[in-house]
Amino acid sequence: MISDKGPHRSAVIDMPLPPTITMAPSSVIVTSRFHESITRHALRSYLSEFISTFFYVFLVVGSGMSSRKLMPDASLNPTSLVVVAIASAFALSCVLYIAWDISGGHVNPAVTFAMAVGGHVSVPTAIFYWVAQLIASVMACLVLRVIVVGMHVPTYTIAEEMTGFGASVLEGILTFVLVYTVYAARDPRRGPMSPNGILLVGFVAGAGVLAAGPFSGGSMNPACAFGSATIAGSFRNQAVYWVGPLIGATIAGLLYDNVLFRSFPTELSEGIGV
Amino acid sequence: MISDKGPHRSAVIDMPLPPTITMAPSSVIVTSRFHESITRHALRSYLSEFISTFFYVFLVVGSGMSSRKLMPDASLNPTSLVVVAIASAFALSCVLYIAWDISGGHVNPAVTFAMAVGGHVSVPTAIFYWVAQLIASVMACLVLRVIVVGMHVPTYTIAEEMTGFGASVLEGILTFVLVYTVYAARDPRRGPMSPNGILLVGFVAGAGVLAAGPFSGGSMNPACAFGSATIAGSFRNQAVYWVGPLIGATIAGLLYDNVLFRSFPTELSEGIGV
Amino acid sequence: MISDKGPHRSAVIDMPLPPTITMAPSSVIVTSRFHESITRHALRSYLSEFISTFFYVFLVVGSGMSSRKLMPDASLNPTSLVVVAIASAFALSCVLYIAWDISGGHVNPAVTFAMAVGGHVSVPTAIFYWVAQLIASVMACLVLRVIVVGMHVPTYTIAEEMTGFGASVLEGILTFVLVYTVYAARDPRRGPMSPNGILLVGFVAGAGVLAAGPFSGGSMNPACAFGSATIAGSFRNQAVYWVGPLIGATIAGLLYDNVLFRSFPTELSEGIGV
Amino acid sequence: MISDKGPHRSAVIDMPLPPTITMAPSSVIVTSRFHESITRHALRSYLSEFISTFFYVFLVVGSGMSSRKLMPDASLNPTSLVVVAIASAFALSCVLYIAWDISGGHVNPAVTFAMAVGGHVSVPTAIFYWVAQLIASVMACLVLRVIVVGMHVPTYTIAEEMTGFGASVLEGILTFVLVYTVYAARDPRRGPMSPNGILLVGFVAGAGVLAAGPFSGGSMNPACAFGSATIAGSFRNQAVYWVGPLIGATIAGLLYDNVLFRSFPTELSEGIGV
Repeated sequence: MISDKGPHRSAVIDMPLPPTITMAPSSVIVTSRFHESITRHALRSYLSEFISTFFYVFLVVGSGMSSRKLMPDASLNPTSLVVVAIASAFALSCVLYIAWDISGGHVNPAVTFAMAVGGHVSVPTAIFYWVAQLIASVMACLVLRVIVVGMHVPTYTIAEEMTGFGASVLEGILTFVLVYTVYAARDPRRGPMSPNGILLVGFVAGAGVLAAGPFSGGSMNPACAFGSATIAGSFRNQAVYWVGPLIGATIAGLLYDNVLFRSFPTELSEGIGV
Repeated sequence: MISDKGPHRSAVIDMPLPPTITMAPSSVIVTSRFHESITRHALRSYLSEFISTFFYVFLVVGSGMSSRKLMPDASLNPTSLVVVAIASAFALSCVLYIAWDISGGHVNPAVTFAMAVGGHVSVPTAIFYWVAQLIASVMACLVLRVIVVGMHVPTYTIAEEMTGFGASVLEGILTFVLVYTVYAARDPRRGPMSPNGILLVGFVAGAGVLAAGPFSGGSMNPACAFGSATIAGSFRNQAVYWVGPLIGATIAGLLYDNVLFRSFPTELSEGIGV
Repeated sequence: MISDKGPHRSAVIDMPLPPTITMAPSSVIVTSRFHESITRHALRSYLSEFISTFFYVFLVVGSGMSSRKLMPDASLNPTSLVVVAIASAFALSCVLYIAWDISGGHVNPAVTFAMAVGGHVSVPTAIFYWVAQLIASVMACLVLRVIVVGMHVPTYTIAEEMTGFGASVLEGILTFVLVYTVYAARDPRRGPMSPNGILLVGFVAGAGVLAAGPFSGGSMNPACAFGSATIAGSFRNQAVYWVGPLIGATIAGLLYDNVLFRSFPTELSEGIGV
Repeated sequence: MISDKGPHRSAVIDMPLPPTITMAPSSVIVTSRFHESITRHALRSYLSEFISTFFYVFLVVGSGMSSRKLMPDASLNPTSLVVVAIASAFALSCVLYIAWDISGGHVNPAVTFAMAVGGHVSVPTAIFYWVAQLIASVMACLVLRVIVVGMHVPTYTIAEEMTGFGASVLEGILTFVLVYTVYAARDPRRGPMSPNGILLVGFVAGAGVLAAGPFSGGSMNPACAFGSATIAGSFRNQAVYWVGPLIGATIAGLLYDNVLFRSFPTELSEGIGV
């Protein structure tokens, strides 16, 4: 069933597999992992990531343009914060849902990075995911730019009094809780509350926009920042939206896997853990 | 059990049936399909579509009138965007829920069109659904017009700088993700996350209003645009709200059925697919 | 198990019981029903209705006072509409949840009235529920009046250009969809989507406030209107908030039970219907 | 399985255990309970409470700073109320979700207090939980203070015309419904609606902010008030945010356990109660 799912493997329950794999020489692993990354199932996963990331960026950046259209000084208006936050929450929940069973619902290079570091996806797969996510984001912003005549695509910016380091820490902290929730939502050991995982990842992204909007924008997603920057032609402070989230996501993933929800073989064999 | 459900059939798991049907001559099929469309169960489905579409349009158009009442220049105010977006999200989730087990919860001619193209509902059924949806929408706007004295029913309009083509593309893109989510929500192969499908269709509709509100209105539903245009007496740009959504919905349905979630007999027999 | 639940019985699956009951002379029924209404389980139900209605009214009327405090001309501001709508949606979902398994989660005299007309609760029980709901609502407004010094409790009012009849129709239509959703949420024949029922009742109440706020207030609950009117000392237009909702609720209940979700004995015996 | 969960025990189903424990002399109990509080599983619980409380406070206080940044007179603007309310609702649902299976998802000293009074957690555990929650809150506010240069951390304040007693009652009433919902969400006897418990605790917190925001702030969480007061250096009215919530939470817990959802041995043995 796992091979059937293409390159995505469940975040938590793949511990029994590695022994089989690590017995083969490492060059074989790399080759086989690369081949695994271009099967039909894998291509379907990349398409799924593309679709989900496209719509996430389209809805989030679109809602930013939308509130700017209604109120040119939107950056000084808390209502525009509500607009973007609700759009982020609703859009993220939805795009995770539609990609969940195919590609695992990353929709975010930071999630993919953390999953790769934690060994949940192979490096070639992670690279293909990143490519799909970044192209999708650029495409979404390009379409918005073309069909909404006469408006610029807004980019994520940092408040004047914030330092780049502070903004990076802020984005990192918010990405931490986002990725931690993604891990919890993917964890099959969760009990009857588990169906809410997808909703809650979206909700925490919405809360993150409300908390960080006027300070660093509340991107929590390097793809989102990259796409809008590419189309707007301004990569100012772009590093902030990569360094913080990648580090935050990785720490969240490692902490979840190794400290808070360590798997024990006995627990896995029972099917119920924690 | 499927015949018990009247004209609506599940979007994905009806593959085993067609062979039986296609052995009969095509004229028989047409006749039997038409008869199938006027049984008691079928009439119940049309009533269900009528009720759900009526309340969806009533709540969405009503919330538009409501924010206009409070602030006459509502079209320049992002708060009115939040009002309509939340009303759309909440109302759509709810009306899908109450129609889900009877008529399949289309509540949208674009969804019905995609389902008919994909072979999930027969053409006569689709026509009856459209009639129910359009009458419901006109009735909802008429009731609003009558009980809210002295206010016009607002119609969907396009921002001055937008082209009709651009608006159509925008509505089509948003309808794509809406219909894609509807397909995912109806898919019985989805795992424990499945109960959230209904909520997420509503949520993505809300996000669509936030992203497209000031540009094309964010209708994503030809019935909604048709009803308000009929009562307001202005069919200007009406085509935008039909062409884009119908094309977007059809592409979404075909992509879901044929590329991303293709069914394989073996998977169906196991009861777990993808 | 049903007798264990006190006076509340499930809205849909109690058809097998009436034959047993109707064989007894009607005076015996009345007496036994009255006794059934004052058992310990029944008293627990009334307490549950009291608690849920108290908090619903407290949060809804409280949020109205809250937005009035921040902006004295709140009745002209769409943001106050958002405040009250979100509070209604969130509060109603929550108070239904905490009362669901005890009293059935009516929290609304219109729901109780429809259930009594449809035979789902006995008349004595309905009367005790109404008493609990109305006292709870008055208490909630009284507490708000006392602890928030110097502010009046806001009452539901009708826009100047609306007629009392129009407002009553509007409240009735909104109560229809609310009660219809309550019936759907209580229906055990619903499939995997069923857990969302509680959320969706709250959501549709929120959408109703957004659609009707500036026209009739969007009460959809006679208890809510009664409590605030009692403490404010103004029963102007009170009939609007009783006549419309009671009629709308009753029609919704009868339509659900008798037309759209008629139970068939065979379906009940299978445990899966519709 | 229960010992596996560290110091957190389920709120309702631990009745069968006490007999075993109470047969030992009380000094042994105290010692063993203390030892139970510093096992590896227990430490994991404290970490979980720390993480969840940190992010809850970070998102709630952050969103308050965020709306203040956009509109310096935020305390006079209902939009800032919406910002903080949505952030509270979304953040609380999420942090409860990620802590639910480890520490029980208290994230609030008032919840821990009520659980300790009701005998669901031991006193040493409750003390460790409080320490984790308070440190987390102070840390969250400190991080916000450092990375958002030039802004003060906002504290909870009471409207001028409110008395301290009135504010305390208001906070107590809101904490009552919050804790009551937590108890309902933890109750394993709840039926198919149970997965929504986590969402609804967040929702009712959001509704509480909308209702109480301009009067007492709508903290409902002593940790939240303590952390912001510590960093802002102003403990004015701090007692309001402790006395009311602790009393309200305790009453809610006792009422839930002893009146509304009393457990009966027979019901427990059946696995289905109420």
